[in-house]
Amino acid sequence: MTTSPVGLHRVLAPAGSLPQAAERLDASAAIGPDEVRLRVERLNLDAASFRQLATKHDGDGAAVRREVLEIVAARGKMQNPVTGSGGMLVGIVDEVGPESSLGLQPGDRVATLVSLSLTPLLITDGLARWDGRSEQVPAEGTAILFGRSIAARIPDDLPGELAMAVMDVCGAPALTARVVSSYPPGARVAVIGGAGKSGSMSLAAARRAGARTVGIVPVEAEAALLREVGLADEVALADARDPVAVATAVERALDAPADVTVVCVDVPGCEHGAVLSTAEGGTVIFFSMATSFSAAALGAEGLAADVTMLIGNGYVPGHAELALDLLRTEPGVRSLFERRLTDSTG
Amino acid sequence: MTTSPVGLHRVLAPAGSLPQAAERLDASAAIGPDEVRLRVERLNLDAASFRQLATKHDGDGAAVRREVLEIVAARGKMQNPVTGSGGMLVGIVDEVGPESSLGLQPGDRVATLVSLSLTPLLITDGLARWDGRSEQVPAEGTAILFGRSIAARIPDDLPGELAMAVMDVCGAPALTARVVSSYPPGARVAVIGGAGKSGSMSLAAARRAGARTVGIVPVEAEAALLREVGLADEVALADARDPVAVATAVERALDAPADVTVVCVDVPGCEHGAVLSTAEGGTVIFFSMATSFSAAALGAEGLAADVTMLIGNGYVPGHAELALDLLRTEPGVRSLFERRLTDSTG
Repeated sequence: MTTSPVGLHRVLAPAGSLPQAAERLDASAAIGPDEVRLRVERLNLDAASFRQLATKHDGDGAAVRREVLEIVAARGKMQNPVTGSGGMLVGIVDEVGPESSLGLQPGDRVATLVSLSLTPLLITDGLARWDGRSEQVPAEGTAILFGRSIAARIPDDLPGELAMAVMDVCGAPALTARVVSSYPPGARVAVIGGAGKSGSMSLAAARRAGARTVGIVPVEAEAALLREVGLADEVALADARDPVAVATAVERALDAPADVTVVCVDVPGCEHGAVLSTAEGGTVIFFSMATSFSAAALGAEGLAADVTMLIGNGYVPGHAELALDLLRTEPGVRSLFERRLTDSTG
Repeated sequence: MTTSPVGLHRVLAPAGSLPQAAERLDASAAIGPDEVRLRVERLNLDAASFRQLATKHDGDGAAVRREVLEIVAARGKMQNPVTGSGGMLVGIVDEVGPESSLGLQPGDRVATLVSLSLTPLLITDGLARWDGRSEQVPAEGTAILFGRSIAARIPDDLPGELAMAVMDVCGAPALTARVVSSYPPGARVAVIGGAGKSGSMSLAAARRAGARTVGIVPVEAEAALLREVGLADEVALADARDPVAVATAVERALDAPADVTVVCVDVPGCEHGAVLSTAEGGTVIFFSMATSFSAAALGAEGLAADVTMLIGNGYVPGHAELALDLLRTEPGVRSLFERRLTDSTG
């Protein structure tokens, strides 16, 4: 087998596309010389994907499970056909090709930091241990890492589920920290969806980078949670889909529009509120997979808003280490993540 | 009438949304105190929108015209429901509200620099002078500018259609120039779709900002045109939807991946090629309304690519002036635009 470091050799259709854009991957378990095979333990579905499935099936867990199985069987990967998104997985390294440069050893427990939407996946247990009602999916099967994939060893000092939840969103705090550091100290940062996983991490990273922060949340219960864990300087209520409400809440909390606005809510229609909340010369970072490219581009133009708008890249060098460090050193982050895992939301 | 500077008072549904996100606007001709009414002369449909309509109706101009009329009647604006995009228009200032701060006078000939997707529009001539086979749509009717809209006076020294075509894409060269200037002199810049309107402008702006440039085009006729007008240091052929082909072409032309890659082709599926063509630490600017947010975000993550990805904001201060200056001072830009207007493509 001749292999490509980005997995082109696993693409069955359409020809020439990369694995993420492919309709169908070859998920067979035999590996090429630079590949790694994992024995899957658990999938973590992307929040936007899980929400779409749960809504479509009106909360019927068995129907959600059936559709996930159908998607994986048809596509050779878990990529939600509506949202385009996937998630990540945890597994044990099973076999390492002689030319792999990922530095993994058989027996290592790892989380994949590339999306499920491009990871060849075979499920062998029919997801029998999953009730279809949570993003966390216990699973048996095999997954393949390419030559240029990214996987992080799960640290021994953290429960696997917790480490996985943190690494799933580790791109958000890393990119937030990088962007905030490009502004003078004391930058104003608004995180829309601040009580969620990527949102709370982004708040912690922004504050560590010297920012003054506000977390915007939709309901009082989320506000109480975020206040309790103490990750934001200010907490304010607003519906992220209501542009004027969001902008007003941000401006009141920070005494001015934000220099950096981070969008971490997985519902459509948050683009305009984010733009309207951001100062001239500011930056909006969109991490939600529900973001509409054209709504963002045309919204900023229509508001005559001179803001830089970033597509949240899930990969920033050192992202897993930064996120795990925040988890270890910020009690508020750990507390919030542990609760999120218990109640299976966010 | 109480008016909002961003046009909230014109939104009929859904309540609370901004005009761009609205399903339906009130396009009635009576203006509020900070509004301006234009007498429409010509619409310029966004390239992605026009292509979608032309493809859907298999090139049947009468059917395209009928659908545009239906959209405007139903929505109170020309926003393609599939692409979400609009375009812009040229008109004569008809009435200026006493509190308008746009600096316009009745009789001024202006181009709107906010999208048609948020501009209240009434068409009164049934588009009788349009054959439905070009993005340029002669039209009669009225359009409304809000307190915080942007419109530019059409210069006397340029034909209206030419100035309009240039101003329609003026965000691209302005943002390209800004991003290229943030890299050291001699930055490598690749423009995918370099022979189109926004692409050729971006090439000219990048070179003026000190870059070494390559224009990537899909077919030899485009390559010949781009070579002839001399706007790119290198010209190379590749299908923008084929990631490996694009990346190989860019790397051969520039002897390395690009520091800045600008995507100006209005077809879906160009995200991965752009990411793969860009060096670590580089920037991709997406100007195509056909860009998929999730394909870009997950593609970069899946390739472990540390690239900054920008949503091309159509508004950058001074954008119209910069674009008109390029048109006046770069004969290659003018030559290419004049041909594009003649053959109604690109």
